[in-house]
Amino acid sequence: MGAMSPSAPAALDPYADIVDLTAAIVDIPSVSGDEKALADAVQETLRVHAPHLTLERDGDTVVARTHLGHARRVVLAGHLDTVPLKDNLPSHRRERDGVQELVGRGSCDMKGGVAVFLQLAVLATAPPVDLTWIFYDHEEVAAADNSLARIAHTHPEWLAGDFAILGEPTRAGVEGGCKGTMKLEITAHGTAAHSARDWVGDNAIHKLGEVLRRLEAYQARTAVIDGLSYRECLNAVRIDGGIAGNVIPDRAHLTINYRFAPDTDPQQAEAHVREVLEGCAVDIEVSDSASGALPGLDSAPAQEFLAALGDGVRIEAKQGWTDVARFSALGVPAVNFGPGDPLLAHTDDEHVPVTELRDALTSLARWLGVDVTAAR
Amino acid sequence: MGAMSPSAPAALDPYADIVDLTAAIVDIPSVSGDEKALADAVQETLRVHAPHLTLERDGDTVVARTHLGHARRVVLAGHLDTVPLKDNLPSHRRERDGVQELVGRGSCDMKGGVAVFLQLAVLATAPPVDLTWIFYDHEEVAAADNSLARIAHTHPEWLAGDFAILGEPTRAGVEGGCKGTMKLEITAHGTAAHSARDWVGDNAIHKLGEVLRRLEAYQARTAVIDGLSYRECLNAVRIDGGIAGNVIPDRAHLTINYRFAPDTDPQQAEAHVREVLEGCAVDIEVSDSASGALPGLDSAPAQEFLAALGDGVRIEAKQGWTDVARFSALGVPAVNFGPGDPLLAHTDDEHVPVTELRDALTSLARWLGVDVTAAR
Repeated sequence: MGAMSPSAPAALDPYADIVDLTAAIVDIPSVSGDEKALADAVQETLRVHAPHLTLERDGDTVVARTHLGHARRVVLAGHLDTVPLKDNLPSHRRERDGVQELVGRGSCDMKGGVAVFLQLAVLATAPPVDLTWIFYDHEEVAAADNSLARIAHTHPEWLAGDFAILGEPTRAGVEGGCKGTMKLEITAHGTAAHSARDWVGDNAIHKLGEVLRRLEAYQARTAVIDGLSYRECLNAVRIDGGIAGNVIPDRAHLTINYRFAPDTDPQQAEAHVREVLEGCAVDIEVSDSASGALPGLDSAPAQEFLAALGDGVRIEAKQGWTDVARFSALGVPAVNFGPGDPLLAHTDDEHVPVTELRDALTSLARWLGVDVTAAR
Repeated sequence: MGAMSPSAPAALDPYADIVDLTAAIVDIPSVSGDEKALADAVQETLRVHAPHLTLERDGDTVVARTHLGHARRVVLAGHLDTVPLKDNLPSHRRERDGVQELVGRGSCDMKGGVAVFLQLAVLATAPPVDLTWIFYDHEEVAAADNSLARIAHTHPEWLAGDFAILGEPTRAGVEGGCKGTMKLEITAHGTAAHSARDWVGDNAIHKLGEVLRRLEAYQARTAVIDGLSYRECLNAVRIDGGIAGNVIPDRAHLTINYRFAPDTDPQQAEAHVREVLEGCAVDIEVSDSASGALPGLDSAPAQEFLAALGDGVRIEAKQGWTDVARFSALGVPAVNFGPGDPLLAHTDDEHVPVTELRDALTSLARWLGVDVTAAR
């Protein structure tokens, strides 16, 4: 059996320089659905180097918790998976315009955050709050496949806490909460006819004109919550219609994406879009929606976290939907905090500045009472 | 060699009842590109039964001409090909709501007309004008493959005449000339961005809203020429745009089809569309255009033809573009005249009323001085 038996997964070196640790994690490919090797490595690293944590495993999600008896628990969660590769592995380092960068799939979204969390999970043996570290799978795919959604059903206690920090890229600033998102399918109906005799038909594409005109003229609201500005967006994201070059089309279709502030729930969001399109001769159907998340920055653990980060840290609203909304839905206020520019996520040239890796590590370490300079 | 040598094509019976002859022609499948068997049968029929005609062949087009020394020549042309089959061969007869019909692919578009022309080509041995009968291929496909276009280059003399009758379905009425047609590609450009941060993007789909609104509000002109009303049509026939559900699209595309009256040339038509869309933030490009055809009903041979048909025959404008425009471009005034409802062309339930076959035959026979009742 010797040669056939699976070898034990190799542990990563959690004491390595954060750039080296990030590179090691980036270099274990983990496109959604293929996270096992990285989940195994994370689990083995914690098993070997973090005896102060209890370990759980569900699919390719690893959950590690302290049980120090603190009054409060903070969850720190980062997804292990990436979008598909684009010839951008293994990672490499480069200097560009005087900036040191680590380049490769996942370096920005969000293996920098995973590396910071993994190092601190090992080092933070005496944190000011109890900690739950979650390294999870299937974030970059359909919401229904997301492992946080699965665990919220199978092991809701693993997600319990008073505050959550998601390691999504925020350029090592704090991005609080997130906007909600809704997809609406707009369908116009008509009557097909030969395009040389349009008077016996009824052009469905033309009926989308008024819808598009209203979207173009739409003045989006900005909601200010806990001092953070959530700017709403209402946009056509897909349009199609047409049968043939000589046929009046009897059907045309438009998909609208509405990003709404977290003070609005999906029902209110739908009602608002219907009001905007009032009187348009189209059918409107919601095909997908997800609530946003309030930033919850006024909660005590959030305030302690922000205070530890210091005045120099940028605090903004998160505009894009992230898994903070899953914690928010469980009653856990949540923020995004991680190295990397969110605009670089999923790009072929995905990369992360080395200084952001160090800044994120240093900020979180300060809050957790860890001396990272002593680690090496 | 015996079994391998191709057998001579079988001639059709040009003296058969017109419904039987139409059925025989319908039952020789001739989807565009596969017209050879039918072209062979037509050629053999004329070779055997119409010694008064000279025969030419080019590809799967058969041209048969009288040379009686008349001052005028009239061209009668019908295409042999059909659109693809839809389990609608062989033909069958049925009675529906008291109407006798022949059902099958090509029965309407336009093997009824081909049957009438083939019978009269054989019977009209002493017509009042010289006649050119054209049975041609590749009409139901791209304009560039149309055999009339080919012959206009290779044998322009075969198309020469003072008047032309195209056997396209007109319910055995006269439909004069035809409208022109133009396709315009409308492209809107923008800037891609995440749909949660639309203020850094520029939505290309939204820019089509004003274009569609103008098309919807457009009041089309009706041009009255030789007493016939050509009603123009300006329509969106295809629209597409969109990258992903969370992306502001940087490009959107619309195809417009403009059907313009034959008193307008393509340059004027393009100028008109540009005027309608004046100020819209889009690129406009003409991708295809074809001139219409003036009815030419005031020409002497047209007047003689109409007089022979009698007052009972309906005379209208042809709204859809047909090959009459090819004759018009060669300076030959042309009309459409054939059995079948043009709205049934290309439908799965394609059929032709038996009375229209007889009416078309009788009308043309009267003009050509043929006693069709004596034929059987």
